Amino acid sequence: MGWCCQKVNHALFTICGPQRPYITYLSLSFHTIKHNKPFQFASVVGYIIKGKEMDTKSFSSLESQSQRHNAPYIHKVGVPPKQDLLKEFKTTVKETLFSDDPLRPFKDQPKSRQFMLGLQAIFPILEWGRRYNLKKFRGDLISGLTIASLCIPQDIGYSKLAFLPPQYGLYSSFVPPLIYAFMGSSRDIAIGPVAVVSLLLGTLLQNEYDPVKNANEYRRLAFTATFFAGITQATLGVLRLGFLIDFLSHAAVVGFMGGAAITIALQQLKGFLGIKHFTKKTDIVSVMKSVFGSIDHGWNWQTIVIGASFLFFLLSAKYLGKKNKKLFWVPAIAPLISVILSTLFVYISRADKEGVAIVKHIEKGINPPSVNEIYFSGENLLKGFRIGIVAGMIALTEAVAIGRTFASMKDYQVDGNKEMVALGTMNVVGSMTSCYVATGSFSRSAVNFMAGCQTAVSNIVMSLVVFLTLKFLTPLFEYTPNAILSSIIISAVLGLIDYEAAILIWKIDKFDFVACMGAFLGVVFASVEIGLLIAVVISFAKILLQVTRPRTALLGRIPMTSVYRNIQQYPEATKVPGVLIVRVDSAIYFSNSNYTKERILRWLTEEEDRLRKTYQPRIQFLIIEMSPVTDIDTSGIHAFEELYRSLVKRDVQLVLANPGRLVIDKLYASGFPDMIGENKIFLTVADAVVTCSPKIVQQV
Amino acid sequence: MGWCCQKVNHALFTICGPQRPYITYLSLSFHTIKHNKPFQFASVVGYIIKGKEMDTKSFSSLESQSQRHNAPYIHKVGVPPKQDLLKEFKTTVKETLFSDDPLRPFKDQPKSRQFMLGLQAIFPILEWGRRYNLKKFRGDLISGLTIASLCIPQDIGYSKLAFLPPQYGLYSSFVPPLIYAFMGSSRDIAIGPVAVVSLLLGTLLQNEYDPVKNANEYRRLAFTATFFAGITQATLGVLRLGFLIDFLSHAAVVGFMGGAAITIALQQLKGFLGIKHFTKKTDIVSVMKSVFGSIDHGWNWQTIVIGASFLFFLLSAKYLGKKNKKLFWVPAIAPLISVILSTLFVYISRADKEGVAIVKHIEKGINPPSVNEIYFSGENLLKGFRIGIVAGMIALTEAVAIGRTFASMKDYQVDGNKEMVALGTMNVVGSMTSCYVATGSFSRSAVNFMAGCQTAVSNIVMSLVVFLTLKFLTPLFEYTPNAILSSIIISAVLGLIDYEAAILIWKIDKFDFVACMGAFLGVVFASVEIGLLIAVVISFAKILLQVTRPRTALLGRIPMTSVYRNIQQYPEATKVPGVLIVRVDSAIYFSNSNYTKERILRWLTEEEDRLRKTYQPRIQFLIIEMSPVTDIDTSGIHAFEELYRSLVKRDVQLVLANPGRLVIDKLYASGFPDMIGENKIFLTVADAVVTCSPKIVQQV
Repeated sequence: MGWCCQKVNHALFTICGPQRPYITYLSLSFHTIKHNKPFQFASVVGYIIKGKEMDTKSFSSLESQSQRHNAPYIHKVGVPPKQDLLKEFKTTVKETLFSDDPLRPFKDQPKSRQFMLGLQAIFPILEWGRRYNLKKFRGDLISGLTIASLCIPQDIGYSKLAFLPPQYGLYSSFVPPLIYAFMGSSRDIAIGPVAVVSLLLGTLLQNEYDPVKNANEYRRLAFTATFFAGITQATLGVLRLGFLIDFLSHAAVVGFMGGAAITIALQQLKGFLGIKHFTKKTDIVSVMKSVFGSIDHGWNWQTIVIGASFLFFLLSAKYLGKKNKKLFWVPAIAPLISVILSTLFVYISRADKEGVAIVKHIEKGINPPSVNEIYFSGENLLKGFRIGIVAGMIALTEAVAIGRTFASMKDYQVDGNKEMVALGTMNVVGSMTSCYVATGSFSRSAVNFMAGCQTAVSNIVMSLVVFLTLKFLTPLFEYTPNAILSSIIISAVLGLIDYEAAILIWKIDKFDFVACMGAFLGVVFASVEIGLLIAVVISFAKILLQVTRPRTALLGRIPMTSVYRNIQQYPEATKVPGVLIVRVDSAIYFSNSNYTKERILRWLTEEEDRLRKTYQPRIQFLIIEMSPVTDIDTSGIHAFEELYRSLVKRDVQLVLANPGRLVIDKLYASGFPDMIGENKIFLTVADAVVTCSPKIVQQV
Repeated sequence: MGWCCQKVNHALFTICGPQRPYITYLSLSFHTIKHNKPFQFASVVGYIIKGKEMDTKSFSSLESQSQRHNAPYIHKVGVPPKQDLLKEFKTTVKETLFSDDPLRPFKDQPKSRQFMLGLQAIFPILEWGRRYNLKKFRGDLISGLTIASLCIPQDIGYSKLAFLPPQYGLYSSFVPPLIYAFMGSSRDIAIGPVAVVSLLLGTLLQNEYDPVKNANEYRRLAFTATFFAGITQATLGVLRLGFLIDFLSHAAVVGFMGGAAITIALQQLKGFLGIKHFTKKTDIVSVMKSVFGSIDHGWNWQTIVIGASFLFFLLSAKYLGKKNKKLFWVPAIAPLISVILSTLFVYISRADKEGVAIVKHIEKGINPPSVNEIYFSGENLLKGFRIGIVAGMIALTEAVAIGRTFASMKDYQVDGNKEMVALGTMNVVGSMTSCYVATGSFSRSAVNFMAGCQTAVSNIVMSLVVFLTLKFLTPLFEYTPNAILSSIIISAVLGLIDYEAAILIWKIDKFDFVACMGAFLGVVFASVEIGLLIAVVISFAKILLQVTRPRTALLGRIPMTSVYRNIQQYPEATKVPGVLIVRVDSAIYFSNSNYTKERILRWLTEEEDRLRKTYQPRIQFLIIEMSPVTDIDTSGIHAFEELYRSLVKRDVQLVLANPGRLVIDKLYASGFPDMIGENKIFLTVADAVVTCSPKIVQQV
């Protein structure tokens, strides 16, 4: 019988010919069946039915018996068809930059249709606009009005965060949403100034110019930064480098947002308590000093009463809206109601004479042009450029995150790169029409979604309401107390503190949590920039750590199968005597090749020590399971060669299992299989073990 | 029969109980045997013996027939025992910083022994010194004398590269090798000034001070840089951050070294051609302009004749040494012979009066102390610090590479971190005794190895010879022509151009080749620093690209097995109808989670399009093979949740195969298995397919 199998084996060898990699495999079923041992298998079945776990030893000895009579047969070639260099390069470029296959719809279309598709690609409104109808408009109208009522008080407050006069917030809610509606691909996002970007921009600009003393330069630098923020965003989109924003990890963003929310809330204490002299720093220590240093003479009780009562009202409205999803409009219009009520109250009571600070004056009329205010030369160009890149990236991160979240809720696709072009264009145009950096707002987008928006038309509606406000209603805000704006901002940013996400992150991944807390504490205790820097650095450090210290695992066989798994994960898995099976859990690159080699040797040393102490047979084969090794480079191959040489000195044979497409290609290019012997490369660990272990069984 | 199997299944289910992950598996052999179809298997065997490749379709239909009657049985739990946080953290720190387990020998030892071991750890000479004997000394003496004869002319030349007077090269070959001999763990490395570091240091220092006009400040800054180079090296070693040097990839180092070699050789044209006015830039364009600009009046034919004839002699000696390994000493002593002969010739012929430039004067006597020359404050401290870090890192890279190479040849371990402490200490002490940055030299270490060195005593021998030279022989070098030094350097650095390695890199990995050529061209056409920067940036970009765009592959079943592999690598692998199997080839992190999700959906869309066109049954199951997914973070889990929601909308079921230890842990922490159903997670792809496909077979 054994002879017959060898015949089979030989025949197969003849078929396959002398091609290089004889990736050998063996189907256990095949052997056992040929030997036809019904009673043994019946006993196995019997065991199982009796409810006992099977005795693995007897099973494996049974298997090795059957194997001893058979040599495994050989299956041909694991080397993929050789790709030519250009094709390989094109594939890489495509996956890196065009992974969404943007030209797919253009394929096999006539020229005129391609032109139309191209236009639609730039202006998605041309596509969805044709299917627009009255029913959709109803949804958009309601949601547009809702977010308009929410955005007007927020805009006024946020422009204070950016140290700009209040009308600039409104300006930024007029032009950018209009542009976005024509070019954007998200249906739910609400465009306008947002708290975090306003704070960031304000902090960065303030480092360059004093917003009060150098109001003119400050404003011009703000437009310059906005211009370059837009250019940055659009460039990333056009160059299809949108994936760069993925380098800010989710955990870091959660931490950063939470920290920014607290910083913003703390900043509001100025308006909320009516303090006149307030620190310019944003860290919690400075702010607290400022707050408690002015407790004797700086706080204004009338302001506090107004602010506190309306904050209570806003938070109650928010709570109500959370409890009952149908009442989502209550927290959405609460800010506007607060503004109206408090303004009326101050107007009637003339509380401003009691020291309650009021908005005083908002410029009437729509956005004046500001092209000639942008610095296109000199030192300020560089400053604006630098600030613009940072603000633009953060704004982008926020907008893309919002776009993706809502798109996945309604199951449509948002094209990241196209979205960046839309956001970039809107900010460039914005910078020329007196707007500062606008992006998607978390809170308003959520309200927009819940109010039933259908398309970006809700942004147009909002924009028109803001237009009317700018045109006719700004004088009405004269008596609006600053404390109300502070209350509105506090109540808005509290939603950014996503402690539930932080808890989940803690549960799932401790390292992520460190990144999250690092960003959070950095923002709260130092400054927005430092928090951001910490977030980016920790994110990168994580990637680098991963590629520097890949995990390795010892494998054992799961009882009753030919499957080999990590013995830490599957404690029931058993080691094969005389064979050490190590899995390397990463591509092997220059950054980890030395570590990997030394770690494998350490596994071997430890195992040999253990075996020597317990008088067990020594290791003769080291099988490296390569399934997770997705790639290797020249340093990695060097490390393997060194590993091989060390093993030869220790009289241990090196065996590879399941090298992937890239790896086998490169191994052959380097001549490594000739070094270790081509018959030392197998399709699976099981095949490798079966080929190695009979020899061991014979020797023992 | 089918009923019976369900019984088995039920029984097993009862055994395993309701533990969470029912990782199901099924051994195909088991089914087929129970059904006992001998003739079918005989026909399979028959096919093979006849030499035909088997008809996979008939085989798989045969298998699926047998499967239809059986439900797979269930194996319990793949969740590893929960590690507590502290232990997990300790493991990570250990693998990152103490992966070589340095405290292992200290375990279970008495205090006095631990103290002795500690001393030995710092001064390995205490360990190997006790086993030192006369036979070893013979080897060390011969090799020490050989490298001394090589190092003296090289030292004088290299100090010119660093724009320092010639004696400083000799100083640096006296003190540092002595220190290293006591603290280092490599037995073959030869310590002293090297070409690349001398060039780098010279270039960087020259940016700050003119080496001729501000000779004093220049020298002091050189010592300061050396001091901080040593501090950097020792600190990396003490903090066990030695792995940081792994971030310079092998390919980048090959390119950088090659470029530096060419740059150094080009710089030698000044001495070689006897040009008086030479550019200070190092790029090839400037140098060539300088060379050909002075062709009419600047070249000195006597110098060229002397230089060229000895260069020919040196290269011939080198060729001879390469051809016949036994004659390794010929190229080793050739430089010293050249120096002696040419010095004699110039002395006799008084060729220096004909315009042949000579060394003129080398300070006699050993190293003067230089502690008080180091800048410990002010701006120069910062400059020295910056230059020291760069030079120290490059020196470290070279020394560690040499140490590792020779250690792997003789199969002993070089402890990277300990080595760094030794190199750092030697440079710190060196900076206080008028030495500039020393490290391991490629050429001299190779000679040392071939001359049969046994221990670091060969460095002591070399050091003593240099000591004697400094004490008594320096006046003899007065008439040594500079052209000889240039010839020696040219012949030495040519060995650094490792074009064979570059060709191998091209063959193995195209991206590595880009890094290699980037560094090479950067050094040759711009400057040493820019080349270095390019090398580092490309190395990092490669890592980041890898984690941003992981590969994915469609899997199919290899005929006659239950093994599923990439259908691009194994074109004979067949897809399973109704099932799409995708393998993700990387840990899923924030940097790639979105891409991964979208790529998987694109695979699905493409496959669905193809099936629709060919009227085949639609995809009902998407199996994700998770074997290479070694880790996942919160962003990754988010992406999976979004993927799941998208699949639900498309009526496709999500199935996971073989999630690893970390992944399954985190999936459970996030509650994802509850979302997709715990019975959708399998041990292998084969199990997943077998569980899914019967349903499909019934429906079709």
